Amino acid sequence: MGLSPAIYSDLEKIVGKKYLTAQKEELLCHSYDATGRSFLPDAVIFPENQDQIARIFKLASQKKICIIPRGSGSGMTGGAIPIDGGVVLVTSRMNKIIEIDEDNFIARVEPGVVVSKIHSAVEACGLFYPPDPASSSVCTIGGNVGECAGGPRAVKYGVTRDYVLGLEAVIPSGEIIKTGVSTAKGVAGYDLTRLIVGSEGTLAVVTKVILKLLPKPKAVKTLAVFFDSMDKAAKAISSVMKQAIIPRCVEYMDEASIDLVRKFISFELPKKTRALLILELDGDKDQVEQEAEQIKAFCYGAGAIEVLVAADKAGAQNLWEARKALSPVLYKIAPNKINEDIVVPISKIPEMVEIIRKIQKESGLTVVSFGHAGDGNIHCNIMYDKKDKVQAKRAEKAVDDLFTATLKLGGTITGEHGVGITKMKYLPREIGSLELEIMKGIKKVFDPENILNPGKIFS
Amino acid sequence: MGLSPAIYSDLEKIVGKKYLTAQKEELLCHSYDATGRSFLPDAVIFPENQDQIARIFKLASQKKICIIPRGSGSGMTGGAIPIDGGVVLVTSRMNKIIEIDEDNFIARVEPGVVVSKIHSAVEACGLFYPPDPASSSVCTIGGNVGECAGGPRAVKYGVTRDYVLGLEAVIPSGEIIKTGVSTAKGVAGYDLTRLIVGSEGTLAVVTKVILKLLPKPKAVKTLAVFFDSMDKAAKAISSVMKQAIIPRCVEYMDEASIDLVRKFISFELPKKTRALLILELDGDKDQVEQEAEQIKAFCYGAGAIEVLVAADKAGAQNLWEARKALSPVLYKIAPNKINEDIVVPISKIPEMVEIIRKIQKESGLTVVSFGHAGDGNIHCNIMYDKKDKVQAKRAEKAVDDLFTATLKLGGTITGEHGVGITKMKYLPREIGSLELEIMKGIKKVFDPENILNPGKIFS
Repeated sequence: MGLSPAIYSDLEKIVGKKYLTAQKEELLCHSYDATGRSFLPDAVIFPENQDQIARIFKLASQKKICIIPRGSGSGMTGGAIPIDGGVVLVTSRMNKIIEIDEDNFIARVEPGVVVSKIHSAVEACGLFYPPDPASSSVCTIGGNVGECAGGPRAVKYGVTRDYVLGLEAVIPSGEIIKTGVSTAKGVAGYDLTRLIVGSEGTLAVVTKVILKLLPKPKAVKTLAVFFDSMDKAAKAISSVMKQAIIPRCVEYMDEASIDLVRKFISFELPKKTRALLILELDGDKDQVEQEAEQIKAFCYGAGAIEVLVAADKAGAQNLWEARKALSPVLYKIAPNKINEDIVVPISKIPEMVEIIRKIQKESGLTVVSFGHAGDGNIHCNIMYDKKDKVQAKRAEKAVDDLFTATLKLGGTITGEHGVGITKMKYLPREIGSLELEIMKGIKKVFDPENILNPGKIFS
Repeated sequence: MGLSPAIYSDLEKIVGKKYLTAQKEELLCHSYDATGRSFLPDAVIFPENQDQIARIFKLASQKKICIIPRGSGSGMTGGAIPIDGGVVLVTSRMNKIIEIDEDNFIARVEPGVVVSKIHSAVEACGLFYPPDPASSSVCTIGGNVGECAGGPRAVKYGVTRDYVLGLEAVIPSGEIIKTGVSTAKGVAGYDLTRLIVGSEGTLAVVTKVILKLLPKPKAVKTLAVFFDSMDKAAKAISSVMKQAIIPRCVEYMDEASIDLVRKFISFELPKKTRALLILELDGDKDQVEQEAEQIKAFCYGAGAIEVLVAADKAGAQNLWEARKALSPVLYKIAPNKINEDIVVPISKIPEMVEIIRKIQKESGLTVVSFGHAGDGNIHCNIMYDKKDKVQAKRAEKAVDDLFTATLKLGGTITGEHGVGITKMKYLPREIGSLELEIMKGIKKVFDPENILNPGKIFS
């Protein structure tokens, strides 16, 4: 596409010389995300505020320049990648927590705020923002809104969508819109807020997010439960979820995952461990103690080899170590990984685990699966070397088989990562052509010139 | 508009003679909703299934006939009223609970199922569907989806939107769409599900609803708290909500409300009572007992005259009597009522209560306010006689003043009733013209000929 010197200069006038760049190093740094795919943009721009974003879009829509919004680039499906050049718009300078309204359980934040900073800021006020994607120490709330991020605590607390009350955003024409409310309830007009949440930065660039907060739970209790077979663990998950106790996290790791992180675990792993569940309860102190005992007894009844209950916060951190060490370690066993975040109905987890085992066997590749078992959200990592053509082909077939099985079990191909570019070709298997046409019609209402993050979700 | 005999006959072929009518009595019965406004349709049709609805719309879109979907007609803003004739499509025959999937916490239901039937059916399986609008014994789930219904339990559990995982629906072209998922998470494509929820039957006619369920809480504890001033009660509400205990209901009644239901109350009302809160806790048995004690102590600290804790279910029903008697009794004090469901930030409740008192004084009309105080959702009922022109004018000014104050306090003009026709002229005060244009653009994507429930939400 390319940017003319005149347009470059116009953009520079908006943000200042310091905040627009076309330097090779900067272009490279903003060319990729966690998928590892990389496409160079024509320029990278760092606006300071909503007004600058509006002016950037006014120019962009006039001159038909593509704008690709970007938070920290930790996305898993290529949503922030400039696949066809254009200007990457980075929200990192818009990183203020504008207000924490303790009386009304609301936070107002800019899109570039890192999610873990929201966690710590609101927790310091005795409040709680539940969504906690694994990347929370780097990912931004703007990106979380774009993808409708989830995380382990979604089992009990839901996902980003459930905590966004309202938005301010710039639409591709350069106009500013306000959606939603600053109150607990609100149904005036169509729900533009939740339409923009999860739209993967294709409808508008979010400039302010109004978040719903909860009171901070008084106590948290963490348990690690060891099984000698993934099948037993999978069955235990669906049974645990049938109790009236809803843990805030129900994470699982299969045998391949456990093997990978064995040396990072500071507690003793029972010898025959082939599957590990990490459960976390929160609420009132006495209540979580009681519930932990109930869950412990229940898991032993479901065939657990051992149940460890963390005595305190440090103990809980130890139990989480295994799970947290996993994602980074994965890159050590193969140069490339395909991380799919399928979801199946909870009752189908045992069946899905069996299918994943079969896919692993047939492909000859290492397939590591773990994830948010409590809501059926399985992160299935297919490890391979993409330079090896045979492996690459097998990996592609493995993904194909995985999605086919997922949809057959009544599931979805993406629970929290979005479609981006990596799942685009699979989307029509889940969503009918008529529904896709409606979505494209909506895209056109917001972005008639197709200048905002084009080529994502649907082609 | 009128229906030609040929079209009438075509419609008859779709549903059968028995299920299409143009009899005056039937037209009258389907001409109004809870607003009391009435407009005669040209015909009323009772389809049996999705396929018939699809065929009705294929014909309607060809012949440019308006279709107005209707559940039980208990809506509060005229959403189901045929303001310009057309065919009222009643979902009452599509009233099957298709499936309660206990393993996966999901129910699949047809749109015409009465909400309280969903409650009892899932509770019989140890499950729980939280949304409980006051009209739950008559309203249908299809109507609840259309309006994004709330109710008292929204404080803790959220509204209809939070429990709809997926939909099947017929769009005005007569084509069938499927949206969303049958799993706890899902982010594939734009969120058409939540776009249709709350769209007041203007985008599609819902034919199947996939509902998320929760485990049924093991215990419920109900408290009635009496105050000698609404101001103290209002301040207590915002303080209660700041505790880490979230009651599942926090309802309030002002002095005018209490006076109205005094004779229906079977428990003794402390003499100086001028405001009443009803709080309901749910969860584990021991936990709710403890929390009830904490809330009791807390309310006494906040100046309550007395706190009654129900000993059992019958006792709880007694405490609820006052609140439940209220809506029907209202009609006895004046021929007409305007029921507005404004929402303000919780911390602004005391201020809003003061404003309502002022509006009452200035208008000279009886204004009764009560509602879901825990989420700032106040039902403000302006009582008048619309045949009395002076009263009618004063009532209109009162509504105007109410909305002006609500928006000034950062609130919304509708928390759960929707816009329909009654709030249409006020909507532009809350939602900007650009946002309204986007909504109209979305309407056009679904309904280019404007045949589905036209003239609602925005003109």
